[in-house]
Parts: sequence; C-alpha cells; structure tokens
Amino acid sequence: MIAPDPSFSQKSMHAIIIRMQATDNVAIVANEGGLPAGTALGAPHGDLTLREKVPQAHKVALVDIPQGAAVLRYGVPIGYAKADIPAGSWVHERLLDMPAARELQGLPMATVKRPTPEPLTGYTFEGYRNPDGSVGTRNLLAITTTVQCVAGVVDVAVERIRKELLPKYPNVDGVVGLEHTYGCGVAIDAPEAPIPIRTLRNISLNPNFGGEVMVVSLGCEKLQPDRLLPPGSFRNIPIRQPGESGSSASEQNDDKLDVVCLQDSAHIGFMSMIDDIMVTAKRHLERLNARRRETVPASELVVGVQCGGSDAFSGVTANPAVGYMADLLVRAGATIMFSENTEVRDAVEQLTSRAATPAVAEEIVRELGWYDQYLERGRVDRAANTTPGNKAGGLSNIVEKAMGSIIKSGTAPIAHVLSPGNKLSREQRGLVYAATPASDFICGTLQLAAGMNLHVFTTGRGTPYGLAECPVVKVATRTELAKRWHDLMDVNAGRVADGELTIEEAGWELFRLLLDVASGKKTWAEQWKLHNSLVLFNPAPIT
Amino acid sequence: MIAPDPSFSQKSMHAIIIRMQATDNVAIVANEGGLPAGTALGAPHGDLTLREKVPQAHKVALVDIPQGAAVLRYGVPIGYAKADIPAGSWVHERLLDMPAARELQGLPMATVKRPTPEPLTGYTFEGYRNPDGSVGTRNLLAITTTVQCVAGVVDVAVERIRKELLPKYPNVDGVVGLEHTYGCGVAIDAPEAPIPIRTLRNISLNPNFGGEVMVVSLGCEKLQPDRLLPPGSFRNIPIRQPGESGSSASEQNDDKLDVVCLQDSAHIGFMSMIDDIMVTAKRHLERLNARRRETVPASELVVGVQCGGSDAFSGVTANPAVGYMADLLVRAGATIMFSENTEVRDAVEQLTSRAATPAVAEEIVRELGWYDQYLERGRVDRAANTTPGNKAGGLSNIVEKAMGSIIKSGTAPIAHVLSPGNKLSREQRGLVYAATPASDFICGTLQLAAGMNLHVFTTGRGTPYGLAECPVVKVATRTELAKRWHDLMDVNAGRVADGELTIEEAGWELFRLLLDVASGKKTWAEQWKLHNSLVLFNPAPIT
Ligand SMILES: [Ca+2]
Ligand SMILES: [Ca+2]
Ligand SMILES: [Ca+2]
Ligand SMILES: [Ca+2]
Ligand SMILES: [Ca+2]
Repeated sequence: MIAPDPSFSQKSMHAIIIRMQATDNVAIVANEGGLPAGTALGAPHGDLTLREKVPQAHKVALVDIPQGAAVLRYGVPIGYAKADIPAGSWVHERLLDMPAARELQGLPMATVKRPTPEPLTGYTFEGYRNPDGSVGTRNLLAITTTVQCVAGVVDVAVERIRKELLPKYPNVDGVVGLEHTYGCGVAIDAPEAPIPIRTLRNISLNPNFGGEVMVVSLGCEKLQPDRLLPPGSFRNIPIRQPGESGSSASEQNDDKLDVVCLQDSAHIGFMSMIDDIMVTAKRHLERLNARRRETVPASELVVGVQCGGSDAFSGVTANPAVGYMADLLVRAGATIMFSENTEVRDAVEQLTSRAATPAVAEEIVRELGWYDQYLERGRVDRAANTTPGNKAGGLSNIVEKAMGSIIKSGTAPIAHVLSPGNKLSREQRGLVYAATPASDFICGTLQLAAGMNLHVFTTGRGTPYGLAECPVVKVATRTELAKRWHDLMDVNAGRVADGELTIEEAGWELFRLLLDVASGKKTWAEQWKLHNSLVLFNPAPIT
Repeated sequence: MIAPDPSFSQKSMHAIIIRMQATDNVAIVANEGGLPAGTALGAPHGDLTLREKVPQAHKVALVDIPQGAAVLRYGVPIGYAKADIPAGSWVHERLLDMPAARELQGLPMATVKRPTPEPLTGYTFEGYRNPDGSVGTRNLLAITTTVQCVAGVVDVAVERIRKELLPKYPNVDGVVGLEHTYGCGVAIDAPEAPIPIRTLRNISLNPNFGGEVMVVSLGCEKLQPDRLLPPGSFRNIPIRQPGESGSSASEQNDDKLDVVCLQDSAHIGFMSMIDDIMVTAKRHLERLNARRRETVPASELVVGVQCGGSDAFSGVTANPAVGYMADLLVRAGATIMFSENTEVRDAVEQLTSRAATPAVAEEIVRELGWYDQYLERGRVDRAANTTPGNKAGGLSNIVEKAMGSIIKSGTAPIAHVLSPGNKLSREQRGLVYAATPASDFICGTLQLAAGMNLHVFTTGRGTPYGLAECPVVKVATRTELAKRWHDLMDVNAGRVADGELTIEEAGWELFRLLLDVASGKKTWAEQWKLHNSLVLFNPAPIT
C-alpha cells in the first residue's frame, strides 16, 4: 500500500517530481524554488504541464481529481477534493477536506494481503556471534549501573579503563558506562515502573556487549542489582577463578551477577572502589578480547530506524529509501524496528491493516491506546496537528505527516509489536513495531533495549546524534545538508530529490552500507565519538 | 520547637544517649549494639537506669509517660502511649498510638513565635562578586544547551576547552556543559512545561557562572534559545568587538544572547562547530579569568541542604548538626534552603506552624498539595510509610521519620517558599523551603536553579555524590562510614553519637567549613572530579 514507486523518481527536463506509489494521483515537486506555471512534467506524465506555480515539496495533481474524490499519496487518502482539481494544479490544504483523525475503534485489522516477496539470500556481514546466538556489530564492555549515585565514580573508572586497560585488549572496541537517572528517588512500585527497569535490564543484554554483564551498584538504592537483573535473566560466560577446575566453576558462576557495590564494607577509600571496578572489568575484557568477527548471514541484523529533525523531504527521500531498505532486510530474514507512537498515531489504520495477523493488529491498538491515555493523564492534547511550518513545507495534514514517518517501515506485514523496554526474542524477526515515544533519545534507548545492533537515523534539518552502544548511520534528506555536514551524514538521500538516484537505488545503497558498518566500518558519529545520553522512558512519577 | 539540645549529647559512663530537645521525654541510644537492661544513663538523667535492653538508635523513656500522654521527640508528638510507660523503658512502635498523617486542611498557620536570635556578624569568605550582586564560590564557564541533540558535540568541545584553553586562563576553575534530556520530544506546551524550562534558564544564571551566558543550540528543537533565555532574563557582561568603542558596544550587546547554533548554514563540517564553540568560549573565558576573589560577608552564602542514603543516625547526628548550622547561617543573614517534599509531607504542620507569616504557610500548603496531586495522577500512594527497615532502625512512624529530615532546617522561621525551578531573588534570605522532589539529583538540580552556591549533603549509608556546578560538602552520620570513606566524606557528624562532640560543636564546625569551601577549599568530590548529572523535574509527558 505504501510501496515507493521508483520508476517515477526521475528527472524529466528540469522538472523533478516524486510520486511515492503508482496509485498516487499527486506527486511532489522536488526542484529548489518550486516550478513555475507552464512547466512540462515530462515523459512518464505524458504532456502534463503545471497550471500554476507549485512550491518546492508541495503536491501537484497528476490527473483530474473530481470533487469528492480521494487525494492519494503514499497510496492512502490524505484528503478529499472540495471541488474539481484539474491535472497540473497545485494541491494545497485549502483544496482538501481532511480525513478525521482515527479513533481506535473499528479499524481495519490485518486486512492487507500481499504476496510474500522473494527471499534475499547470500548477503552476509562480519559480526561477533554471542553465546545466545545473537550477533554484535561491535565488541564493547558495558558497565551496568543501578542508580545515578554511582555515575561520577563510574565516569572516573571508565576513563581509567579506556586509558590503562583498553590498549591491552586490542579486540575490544570500547567501554561504555550505562548511566541513567533512574534507580532511586522514583516510585519504584508504581504501575509503570516495570518499563524503565526492564529497559535497563535489556540494554545490559544488548548483543554488542557480548553477553558480559557487570554491575556497579551503590548499595542502598531502591533498584537493587537482583531486581534489575534477577537470576535467570542473564547468563555470563563462566567465570573461572584461579585454581578452579573448568567445568564445576562454570556451573557455579554462570548465573552469579558480577556486582561492585560501592557501600560494600570492603571498600576503604575511593581508590578501592575504582580498583575493584578495574579488576572486575579486566575479567570481562579478557573474554571480550578473545572474540573474533565471523561471517554471519544478514538475517542477524537487528536494525532500529528513526527520524529526527525532519523536514519536507524526510517523507520524500530519506524515509522512503529507508523503507526500501527495510523491505530488503525483511527479505533477508533480518529484524527491522520502526517506532515513534505520536508520529504514526494519526495513520493508525495503515498499521493495523498491515498487521500480519489480527492479534498483531490488536497489540498495535493496545499500545497506541495506552499512549493516548498516558498523554491525556498529563493533560497533553493527543492530536499532534501539523504546525504552520509543516504546512509551509507542503504537508497538508496529520495523516500525510504520519505517512511520511511510517514509510520508513517499507511495505512488509507488521510481524510483531514490542512494548517499551521489552527485548525481542530470537524468533521475532521481520518488521516490528516497537512502540516508543518519538523523542530521539528515548526511542533510541528503547530500541537498544529491544536488541538493536544497528541504528539508522534520517534527518532533514541535521542532528549530530550518536550512541556509544551501537553504530548510528545517519541519512540526510537533502543534498545541501549532506554537503554542508559532509563529515556527519553517512548517506545522502537528497540525491533522490536531485533526480540522480531512484529510491530503489538509495535503498540498496543503504542496505549494503549497513552490512559494511555491521562488519566494522565506522560511522561519522563513531569517528568523532559523539555519544548522546541513554534516556529512559519513565511514565511514573519521581518522588 | 525542634531545637537540638546540645547539653544532652554527651557521654555518661558508657551509655551514650541523645535527646533532640529539652522538652523531649525520650532519647536515642547511640551505643553500637544498644544498651543492656540495668545500664545507668548517668549525670543529666539522675539515677535513671534501663528497665530492659534498648537497641541502637531506638528510644528510651526519660520520665514516666502516663497512658494517653504524648511521646515527644524533636519537641513534637510522635505518638501517644497505649499504656503507662515507666522511665527507663524501651519505647518502640508497639507501645504507641500513631498520630494520623496530616491532611492539608486546618493546619496551624504561622503559629510559632520565637524571639529573633542575635545576629551573627563578622564572618566572611572569599568569593566572586557578580554584576548582579550575587556571589560565586567557584569561577566556572558554563555552556548552556537547549536540547540533548547537541550533547555529544558539547562533550567533545568541553574536552578540548579543558585541554587547550583552560591552561591559558588560570583563574577559571573549570568548564561545565549544562547537558540534559529536555528540549525536544517533550510536551513543551503542557501545563507543567514551565518547570523544566525555568529550571534550565535559572541554572544558566547560577552565581558560580559569573553572569556569563553562552548557549549551544541545534536549531530545530522545540526549546528555542530565546524561549529558554528570553530578552531581559539575563544580562551578559558587555561584549566588546575589536575596534568598537567601549560604551556603545556595551549597550548593544548586553542583552544579546551568545548562541552557537549547530544547524547554522555557516557551519561546514563538524570541526567548524567545535571551532565556533571554542571561539565563543574564549570570549567568556577572557572575562571570567579577570575575576578575583574578594572578601564578602557570610550573608552571601546560598546553601542548599539535602539528605540521601539516610540511616537511623541521619536524624540524630548529621541532620541536627546541619540544622544548627542552618540557624547560624540565618543569624549571619545568609540563605539556606531545605527541600524534599515527600520527606517533610508527613510533618507538614511543623512547617506551616514555623512559617514566618500566614501567607508563607499558605504557600507551603499549596506546594505540598500540588505534589500530592502529582503523585496521585501517577497512581502512586502519597503516604511514604515507614518501611520495615525504618522500624528496625528505630523510627516508629512517618512523623518521626519526617522530623529526622526536617531537622536539617534548624529552628528559624520559614521566611520564603520556592516553587520548583524558580530562582530566589537577592531579597529572599533566611530559611527557605524550596519545594522539590526528594530524589537527590532532581533536588540538587532545582537548588542549583534557585541560586545555590554551596551544597551540604548528609548521608548514613554513603554516597559519592558530587556536582560539576557547585561544591558539595558531604556529612557522614556515623564514624564507621566516615573512617571507611575517609576521602569521600568531608565531615564526620558521627562523633556526636560517639559522645565526642555536641551537636552545637558539630554545627559550628560545619559553618566554619562552609566558609572555607566557599573561599576555594576543595571538597573531596571536587578532588576526585565526581560529577553527577543534572536531572530535570519534568512532570509533563514526553512525546
Ligand atoms: Ca521522527
Ligand atoms: Ca525521533
Ligand atoms: Ca532525604
Ligand atoms: Ca535527597
Ligand atoms: Ca556524561
């Protein structure tokens, strides 16, 4: 239903217009400054010429649209013609009756049936295979923390590990303190407290950390280490103590949590805390250092996609290219997550209709309904209506805006839905709706918890976003941004608007780049060591 | 009403018992392991001996308490005797009828009249006087950020400023990136959004930053620089451009916000952003470096007090010593803030009765009532009842627990109440109730926004808490902790429980230490560079 239609992303004379799907009766003018009246749209559109000036990123009618008929973009109705709209007209929001924002009742549930596309085989990357079968794209020592109280101490320890230990373990890519603001001074028994707690737990288990878990705890915090990581929730590689024989030691230690507790009475003075963290880190670094990349199928990718700092071209170039990439990943048997509740909410029926089963559609409704209530409780209006800036950018309404975000998900059926903070099982593959807030950092943090080993981020205005935990591939929507931020943007999807590249080509380029980055190629954010904070989603009050 | 009674904090034979106020009819056994039946309590208590074993930190009846009579600790009823309690008995919670948790109606409003104590004159410290009259205890360059998006870039810039620029500006103590997780992906027009926004604004104006304001912004964030710091909210020291004559330049520039916007079209590549931040920082470092400490009266201190990682001795040693210090600060004309809504809530009538005026009492009720509703909205039970651990530690009920926290405020009338995120004016001196959550980091962040230039933090279990923005003096409640964490705890109030020091002496020691630290003496957290995160109080949803 929202398949990009690459054959229409092409340059004809000087006019560059982009239609998202073959059934669309409108297309977007990509030319800078828009196009004047009389411009011929060229080959695929026969002898169509513009009846009036159409600004950049705004819509043009490709056929006569009679009064009352649906204006179709992304293959869905984004409004209904108030009067006849002749082909070649500028289709702006004043010509349209808006479709009402959808309530969560009476939605089409798993109604779209689509032939399963041919599997994509033979694509591989060089990754770190973990004991649980998952695959890391980086080999990182993560230090889990239970509470903000320990963050200052962990920062000092991480700095020393970086300087004094990492040079001795050349196969380890880095060390990350998993710091956060949760753990105490929070309503830890509130109905929603499980969300931040499981988020922290599951981030500790991210495939990029090799299954090694070490924790720095204060001692008196509400979030005790065994509440954060209860027995059975993790499985360390067996720790062999000096002198112990192999097998018995393994059995004893593989579910014992490796905790440095600062309030432990054995700690005399600050340096004893640092030394203890260093000694513990060393144990895990030894094992991480023994790991080697091996060839694994592309199906081991767990990719989270997101957009932020969006512009009028996000839904035209970068997001459709990511959508095409998403379809390739699904065909390759990989996992691809899209998210951002408030951005998809106004086109909810596109999600429920694309659900693989009615049960999956129900889960979508449940997650978005829960989020509606969360916003209501905070007395925030759910309807994220288009802003004046959006309209100036050519977005007629909230459905069109939501479709520009949803198109990142491509065309595959939605196979699974994930609640915030939960982790995907190895069996949950294909296209996943990971229900998260749209906030870039909260969404990224929740996708890390879900098990993401590669992050793709599209941006039109530009953001230097980066994560210490996982590579972030940044995709620019416009060539101007890609050129100006030449050493921050990894891919320029703006070439689609320039008529240099089809969406299909951009999607393939992204797919191939993902395999390279997963194999170790550094992103720009990694080159510059740009690391944003983990930000937990805590819907419960603090105390 | 809750004056510590130092004459009773003394060693008699081997028994060490601590009475908080002369009107109390119970006292606390401080001896490790408690005291056995038959122990003579010694001098001030006549020939009183224990009728039974009393555990450490538990209460002993100093006089016969008849059935129905109030058991007084901190000068307030913490319960009523269920039966006659003879002098020398262990007074545990099973002997008491609990006073009901107070609702917010019918409270005593500004009922306590207390003679104004003699002003304390002649105490001074060496501080940095700011253009607005406020005084810094440190000379720091702060880089304000509008949004988490810029944090990775600011981290890189701060590191370079530290290494390349600070050595050239020896009078500047450090550089701080004011990073946070607000700014975008938040409900910025929600009813409570002004709280995090004004918090960030007012932190930028903290006296330790010398009135220099520079901002790093992304460009497309919801929290735009001029919403964060609107004209008139700040006043830079005039920026003189090369070639400009003095006075006209000053007038032009003193309310122009100094912003580095990463999305600015002038930025070509990552390094141009870093360079721009460095050049901007230099301008402010030049002026900060010209500042010198000068002798100022103790009345320029703005001290925030807090407790965290509390134990049974927090309300017996460290908090009463801080309370005595608070009284000294008030007598010296300084400002002293106490906070932590959920910890004081159950003894609200102690606060309202101590309010300087009925209007101040009303403000206390309004703030705590608002907080009750905030917790209810999140479906969290307001009543922070004593835990089993509290009872084992000798705290009979929620009022007694709250009094152990409130005693940090000493005995002065509550002169002002501050809503979260607001800044004290120069006229708001004396004892202030700054209404904040109890969370250590959120409370500290809000006290920084209020204008705190010195932080005092008491702890029984131990926390390595530190702030980059302001010195934190840490006070241990027990000698064992103070000895074990000898290079993290700045003061050992445990000597009060050891019978080595009276509360009065400990309070004076703290007061004198504050003047030293305000003058430049480093705290342990500063020595080790232990810096916890700023954590904003955002009661509104994220999006
Ligand atoms: Ca987005
Ligand atoms: Ca986002
Ligand atoms: Ca406290
Ligand atoms: Ca606290
Ligand atoms: Ca940090």
